Amino acid sequence: MSYNYKDIKLVLASASPRRRELIQLLGLPFECTVSEADESTCMKVPDEVVKEISRKKALWAYEHRGLGTNEVLIGADTVVAFENNILGKPASENDARTMLRMLQGNVHSVFTGVTLIWRPDNATGPNIISFAQQTDVTFSKVSDNEIEEYLQTLDYRDKAGSYGIQGPFGRHVQQIHGDYNNVVGFPVNAVYEALKKYCCD
Amino acid sequence: MSYNYKDIKLVLASASPRRRELIQLLGLPFECTVSEADESTCMKVPDEVVKEISRKKALWAYEHRGLGTNEVLIGADTVVAFENNILGKPASENDARTMLRMLQGNVHSVFTGVTLIWRPDNATGPNIISFAQQTDVTFSKVSDNEIEEYLQTLDYRDKAGSYGIQGPFGRHVQQIHGDYNNVVGFPVNAVYEALKKYCCD
Repeated sequence: MSYNYKDIKLVLASASPRRRELIQLLGLPFECTVSEADESTCMKVPDEVVKEISRKKALWAYEHRGLGTNEVLIGADTVVAFENNILGKPASENDARTMLRMLQGNVHSVFTGVTLIWRPDNATGPNIISFAQQTDVTFSKVSDNEIEEYLQTLDYRDKAGSYGIQGPFGRHVQQIHGDYNNVVGFPVNAVYEALKKYCCD
Repeated sequence: MSYNYKDIKLVLASASPRRRELIQLLGLPFECTVSEADESTCMKVPDEVVKEISRKKALWAYEHRGLGTNEVLIGADTVVAFENNILGKPASENDARTMLRMLQGNVHSVFTGVTLIWRPDNATGPNIISFAQQTDVTFSKVSDNEIEEYLQTLDYRDKAGSYGIQGPFGRHVQQIHGDYNNVVGFPVNAVYEALKKYCCD
């Protein structure tokens, strides 16, 4: 038994306003729910890290909220990776300064992991799949002055890698290779294709 | 004599609401002005086409509006190129259908041309530069049904290539290579770097 795409109702286990905006491109009704999952991981490779944390977020929501008919629960997690470092959200302004000085003039990768949980049949346990998407981002050279100017906007807060591609630091992005929405935090195309492939066929 | 970046005032010769939004990432005051330039060209190569039309738009505005101290006039034009075809805005729903059926499942290129006009010294004529940026866009396979669904949203109207990457057709974009904002219609990073390089140094 599987879903009909147009009948799906999405449940997003994320408080990110950027993910809330992007999920709308799927053209389906959705609601948001919190996830208080423990976000620690012993994984070291970025795509494994984001897959595991997205799974923890989705499973926490599944256990605490449950899942109704035609619902698909979505967990997502995003990190920035640069030369064997995994960069999450900055803990302070100085942390953000260090990250941005490291990333400017270089290519880094953004990984978003996604977990889908759905339960087409009440008789059996839930189906779970996780996947990760990578997008490479190239920054042009950014001077210390330009970084200080950006830090003053406070836009870096709550952003993996200390920048938002759609905000004032976006003017320094020379090019990307991959899905742009994945950098914002939600790989719309991959989620759309996965919903059609796994939940509907 | 040249400008100080922070003192620049931008004048955008475009009515596009998407360009108006993106120009804000430059962090400078700006105003918008119309351009009624003739948009015909005998150029055949996409980057030459968009450079020429952006120049015509900027020059029309320069001639009709003039240019004040510290002002930089910006003209821009975007086309989609696929297998030797240059696709502008669709003339009808059927035109849009044909374009989207052609582009789905394939890689195409988006070209935006930009012209900057500035006049640091009243004694001499204006400085003019034009450049073009290319971004490659990959669509996943899109069924005829999915195209019909999209056409019903009317989002294709007034969009080069018959889609807006930030709208409901965005879910079909698998990846891009280049500047995302260039696909939306305004290559923010290239304009930022050009303003610093040409108008300020």
